[in-house]
Amino acid sequence: MSAALLQALRETVGAAQVFTHDDPGADLSAWEQDWRKRARGRALAVVRPGSTAEVAAVVRACAAAGASIVPQGGNTGLVVGSVPDESGTQVVLSLTRLNAVRAIDPANLTMTVEAGCVLQNLQEAAEKAGFLLPLSLAAEGSCTIGGNLATNAGGTQVVRYGNARELCLGLEVVTAQGEVWHGLTGLRKDNTGYDLRDLFIGSEGTLGVITAATLKLYPLPAARLTAWAAVPTLDAAVSLLGLAHQNLGAGLTGFEVMGQFALSLVDRHCPTLRVPLWTDSPYCVLLENSDNESEAHARGQFERLLETAFEQGLVSDAVVAESLAQAHGLWHIRESIPLAQAEEGLNIKHDISIPVSRIPAFCAETDALLQREIPGVRLVNFGHLGDGNLHYNVQAPVGEDAKKFLKEEESRINGLVFDAVARYDGSISAEHGVGSLKADHLPHYKDPVALGLMRAIKQALDPQQIMNPGRVLVRP
Amino acid sequence: MSAALLQALRETVGAAQVFTHDDPGADLSAWEQDWRKRARGRALAVVRPGSTAEVAAVVRACAAAGASIVPQGGNTGLVVGSVPDESGTQVVLSLTRLNAVRAIDPANLTMTVEAGCVLQNLQEAAEKAGFLLPLSLAAEGSCTIGGNLATNAGGTQVVRYGNARELCLGLEVVTAQGEVWHGLTGLRKDNTGYDLRDLFIGSEGTLGVITAATLKLYPLPAARLTAWAAVPTLDAAVSLLGLAHQNLGAGLTGFEVMGQFALSLVDRHCPTLRVPLWTDSPYCVLLENSDNESEAHARGQFERLLETAFEQGLVSDAVVAESLAQAHGLWHIRESIPLAQAEEGLNIKHDISIPVSRIPAFCAETDALLQREIPGVRLVNFGHLGDGNLHYNVQAPVGEDAKKFLKEEESRINGLVFDAVARYDGSISAEHGVGSLKADHLPHYKDPVALGLMRAIKQALDPQQIMNPGRVLVRP
Repeated sequence: MSAALLQALRETVGAAQVFTHDDPGADLSAWEQDWRKRARGRALAVVRPGSTAEVAAVVRACAAAGASIVPQGGNTGLVVGSVPDESGTQVVLSLTRLNAVRAIDPANLTMTVEAGCVLQNLQEAAEKAGFLLPLSLAAEGSCTIGGNLATNAGGTQVVRYGNARELCLGLEVVTAQGEVWHGLTGLRKDNTGYDLRDLFIGSEGTLGVITAATLKLYPLPAARLTAWAAVPTLDAAVSLLGLAHQNLGAGLTGFEVMGQFALSLVDRHCPTLRVPLWTDSPYCVLLENSDNESEAHARGQFERLLETAFEQGLVSDAVVAESLAQAHGLWHIRESIPLAQAEEGLNIKHDISIPVSRIPAFCAETDALLQREIPGVRLVNFGHLGDGNLHYNVQAPVGEDAKKFLKEEESRINGLVFDAVARYDGSISAEHGVGSLKADHLPHYKDPVALGLMRAIKQALDPQQIMNPGRVLVRP
Repeated sequence: MSAALLQALRETVGAAQVFTHDDPGADLSAWEQDWRKRARGRALAVVRPGSTAEVAAVVRACAAAGASIVPQGGNTGLVVGSVPDESGTQVVLSLTRLNAVRAIDPANLTMTVEAGCVLQNLQEAAEKAGFLLPLSLAAEGSCTIGGNLATNAGGTQVVRYGNARELCLGLEVVTAQGEVWHGLTGLRKDNTGYDLRDLFIGSEGTLGVITAATLKLYPLPAARLTAWAAVPTLDAAVSLLGLAHQNLGAGLTGFEVMGQFALSLVDRHCPTLRVPLWTDSPYCVLLENSDNESEAHARGQFERLLETAFEQGLVSDAVVAESLAQAHGLWHIRESIPLAQAEEGLNIKHDISIPVSRIPAFCAETDALLQREIPGVRLVNFGHLGDGNLHYNVQAPVGEDAKKFLKEEESRINGLVFDAVARYDGSISAEHGVGSLKADHLPHYKDPVALGLMRAIKQALDPQQIMNPGRVLVRP
């Protein structure tokens, strides 16, 4: 059976675009190993179609053979959603050869791109045409837009521009039956039926394969300024966010929070970086103000905001970057936290969201709970406060073996954190998705009626259960 | 059978909240007649539950009896989607008693409201709390938020804030089985599964009943200014839109276009209104600039924009409203077009969208086509140019009997316009939805794979086909 399928795949995309373990010198690890090295699978084959029609033909061949398909873009996902399982029966469908920018429409403020385009290339193509593609995240140098959409990626500008979902107007999708839905609309308004676009976005390849998308573009801001502020409490950070919304309006394009311990790790492990204002404050905040007018105007707004915040006791000290280089430096500190944390040792990662108003109480309660349960535990707390999204990571107490700590405590700590998240009406996956890493947790934390609806939709669109099975929803 | 159902409904919501034609002095016309008086149905009963639990019980009772349900809010829809058919067997489920604002969360910038709340009441509740609920449309004094979400309403501020869908974070929904999905999240980020929210939004009551929603709020702008500009061509209007995006950024909260004939009707039929600048230009444009800083700042931005536009030949003349009263007056002219048009006589209405960049070519081609086919036909063209959304309405030639014209020509003119829309990659329903008025058109203009996916979802979530049958999708 698998020989016949491989033959069919080779006929579809050409033998040079089908990779198997039987190839001389075969090394499929780039496709089989997940980004965080949490799981290593074994594929029947890796197939790299060169067009939407070829993607459709691959899906039809797999469907005819009853073989499962694992769509893959840049393979930078964090929840083990884009690598095959260990069965050796799954076909990895790599989209990276579909990497054309099909069109940029300046007057419509849209660009139409193929799924395999690397995000950073799209940001640059947009900028070259005079526009901003606002999706921006750590993996942008290697992740693909198809993966960004399949996982509804978030990132650092969500507070202004929304997630990947909000940046997408239209999709081209290959269904689980190998048909092509031509939904590449550039329309801002289209009320002719159910919102299929948003259903495929965030479905992590379990309902079909996104092959192209039409994305929103924005005018390039005239200036972008960054400020760094020390805040006395998390409550103050939340109040500062409200003040920033009020004063900057849509100019507020970034609002990140960083706990003192997280910044201490950057200070310790990244000696070339000078972390400002962290020693005397429990939290620091990074703000970005994008202005359509001028740098002087942006700076005036920023200074008024910080002055008011200082007067209200929301900020104890602050700096506004004087140059682009300084601004990049401040963002670089924020982005170095995961690396510094890895240097400190293995840790238990969480990607949670909580209503912004309840974050201070959530952190106070959960910090205390974890300290009670595991004395000496260290919390690396940072994230996109503007979106209510925290990367609430847990590091072993000083001196403890991190590997042993993870093995023994990860499951219990996940339970404690997720239960707390549930008490605060939060989400156990804010921006990373479910994949297979969190699929088992969903039945405990997701509304049962919602789960039932999801299963009904999965069954309706992929009755053969061949699209990325076991991801998002555990196998029936 | 129907007697047993009526009995069950009375036990569920109380006899006083069940209305039938057998009641003494019964008049169900407010629920049975659609807003535009295109169709009059006959209900088995009108039921007004007072809570989500009662809505669920009503749906279960109807499901047990195999009776169809027609959810209804303010009954202001324009596509005959919320009134019963003529069979006398359908139950109208009126949501108007679910009209509580459940919560306003200032720090999270959200409000949680019940489906039956009138939109204007919600705008006022938000403003009282110091925030803006940006959804705004002509029917806001009587439409309900449940209906706005069920139809993914658009309106006048979509260019900045998006449609109803983009303003909603969470939903509470009663499924076709009478279960309650508790999805009232106030989270900006939640990637734990399929996007059920956006699936129910815009599904026009055919998949379930929206009973409550959590909506996004925004800071109130410090100032809102309105300008009115005469433009030499539709091309110039599109270029002016691009310039406004560039100069005002997110401050651009409104961009409406109005054709000369549309304005001439306001001039003729609304003698108390003084329509500016319309006599010498084929189109006028209404722009709104919302500013988080000050009126002086907004005015400066506006003046610079219009100056540049004037220099580039995009604007031949313009006025900026000097007061709030003047601004309201300009908007009032725009909003009087449908009324003035009705005074002129019956007409054929279209609610279409086209990629903004292609609107000038679409209008040139379609205007000429209609003139060729029906000499003397008059085009009342106006709409939300910022969203690519035109109300491209067709009025009988001078002196012709409008009723006769509609009867003889409506179907042919719809076909001509819709075919042109399809050639320009547009949508035959931008913001009004499908209802039963356009359900027959969908199979001709919607991608067949998309239609197949929609049918599969409908079958999966409402296998009994009791939720607003025949709307959006024609009966199988």
